[in-house]
Amino acid sequence: MHDAGHSEEQDAAALAAPDPGFAARVRASFARQRIMQLLGAELSRIEPGLCEITLPFKDALCQQHGFFHGGVVGTIADSAGGYAGFSLMPEDASVLTVEYKLNLIAPADGDLLTARGRVVKPGRTLVVARADVTVRKDGRETLCATLLQTLMTMHGRNDED
Amino acid sequence: MHDAGHSEEQDAAALAAPDPGFAARVRASFARQRIMQLLGAELSRIEPGLCEITLPFKDALCQQHGFFHGGVVGTIADSAGGYAGFSLMPEDASVLTVEYKLNLIAPADGDLLTARGRVVKPGRTLVVARADVTVRKDGRETLCATLLQTLMTMHGRNDED
Amino acid sequence: MHDAGHSEEQDAAALAAPDPGFAARVRASFARQRIMQLLGAELSRIEPGLCEITLPFKDALCQQHGFFHGGVVGTIADSAGGYAGFSLMPEDASVLTVEYKLNLIAPADGDLLTARGRVVKPGRTLVVARADVTVRKDGRETLCATLLQTLMTMHGRNDED
Amino acid sequence: MHDAGHSEEQDAAALAAPDPGFAARVRASFARQRIMQLLGAELSRIEPGLCEITLPFKDALCQQHGFFHGGVVGTIADSAGGYAGFSLMPEDASVLTVEYKLNLIAPADGDLLTARGRVVKPGRTLVVARADVTVRKDGRETLCATLLQTLMTMHGRNDED
Repeated sequence: MHDAGHSEEQDAAALAAPDPGFAARVRASFARQRIMQLLGAELSRIEPGLCEITLPFKDALCQQHGFFHGGVVGTIADSAGGYAGFSLMPEDASVLTVEYKLNLIAPADGDLLTARGRVVKPGRTLVVARADVTVRKDGRETLCATLLQTLMTMHGRNDED
Repeated sequence: MHDAGHSEEQDAAALAAPDPGFAARVRASFARQRIMQLLGAELSRIEPGLCEITLPFKDALCQQHGFFHGGVVGTIADSAGGYAGFSLMPEDASVLTVEYKLNLIAPADGDLLTARGRVVKPGRTLVVARADVTVRKDGRETLCATLLQTLMTMHGRNDED
Repeated sequence: MHDAGHSEEQDAAALAAPDPGFAARVRASFARQRIMQLLGAELSRIEPGLCEITLPFKDALCQQHGFFHGGVVGTIADSAGGYAGFSLMPEDASVLTVEYKLNLIAPADGDLLTARGRVVKPGRTLVVARADVTVRKDGRETLCATLLQTLMTMHGRNDED
Repeated sequence: MHDAGHSEEQDAAALAAPDPGFAARVRASFARQRIMQLLGAELSRIEPGLCEITLPFKDALCQQHGFFHGGVVGTIADSAGGYAGFSLMPEDASVLTVEYKLNLIAPADGDLLTARGRVVKPGRTLVVARADVTVRKDGRETLCATLLQTLMTMHGRNDED
């Protein structure tokens, strides 16, 4: 991990999207996720194997102590990881979340959540992705959650169907 | 599991809440979770170590294929498990989700989600809970997700603070 | 969960193995898992969608405090869930663990571990299973771990290959 | 993740061990984990918040297809993450694995496993760690598993007790 030979950053950098129109495809799919509009989330970055989603604070997203609810954190982390994976899939495929695990490692107390998803391992059928979520307070970002996720490629099932 | 000697149902039935006012305490906390109002979720059942949350379908809760978004499923499952745990905590404590894993085992395609949380193992500091989520379609409930969760008791920190 | 309508026990009871020779197939595969012999584990029960593995204590299986190591608990839980899933697969398939999550909920302090795996959701490609692990001390079994697992069916790849 | 501002590598590099004798303490604890000797695992590197464990192949560690068993992969990954966390704990504390999730992302087919654990988030009570496991074949290392883990610090309970 600290050794060049095992750098995940290098691995991620080497990822290539088989569909040149991947960014438009991801943006169109994101736009169809109505829940993202309800929450107020935005797709702020999409690259092959990488996806970033941001979500400004509003009272309606709170748990009982006034912080972002853990489920909201999980929702954007799940989508960030999912679209990181989807960016690497062929044009005629759609993506399904098989499962994810979310560790809530600090209170999501701040004015902006940012979920950064990244593919750890692309595969023909199964894809493993991660997402880290930071919360910004007084201009400073703190890691508040991390997600580890398994995705499934649904070949021959266009995402718009 | 199929043997009487290891029945989790029996174990769960034996759980007792140290705070006789646990139900009112859970309902008050749930009412403060603003996200539940945004989604339209309701607390439909609370017993010692058990909590049920229901959520009717609306377009705004969708992912890209028109089903409930996995993050929404995770949000009510997280709260159902969390409040199952909270019901067993002392009056002066609050609950924190440490982490959860969610398996999405069937498309959440239907008109009503029901998350049933249950404490697997109560503990002074850490509590392990589960939640199963069903989706109702044409009057029939199907298991669509299952969650395994670790909670933390925050002693001496009243939930209303 | 406590309601008849959502009984997982009922669901599990309804599981049927497509291969009538499933028990012999599971036993043969278990016998090829050399690690089970190294640990001293035995396959004590196999039914459609259910598998039980037991492991007597020996010093060589310890972590630093003299209890069964969490990885050992995970190893037999992984195999119990995996073979529960394998029992429902066709004759020409093999099973692969995609991922699992293990909660260690009490010290594995005792003379016998028993892992009981059970299929939660069979599927053509993916199977979701659970396993509970108990530890026996002074003749009394205590739940010490619970596992939630995703398996993959490898069609057309016989387990003996 | 790719931005300097959120570099986990930087975060990890900044970790400091409160106990200057952390390396000896970890090595002594590892030596008491009898299961490591049974498997043949070695502690190959220990730094504040980092731990590496290696395990050469032998037939006795196999699953049914002749690869390292997933439970063996999980066992060394669990210990690598756990000792990464333990390295940052005070002298009078011991470490407990609360739970972990393991994704097996490629067959563990090769002659040497290496698990590299790293602390993601240190905390007074709870610690979140990760471990990546590679398998070496024909001199080339491939990522075969990744683990995400929650640890608990047991204050005032020396590891040797």
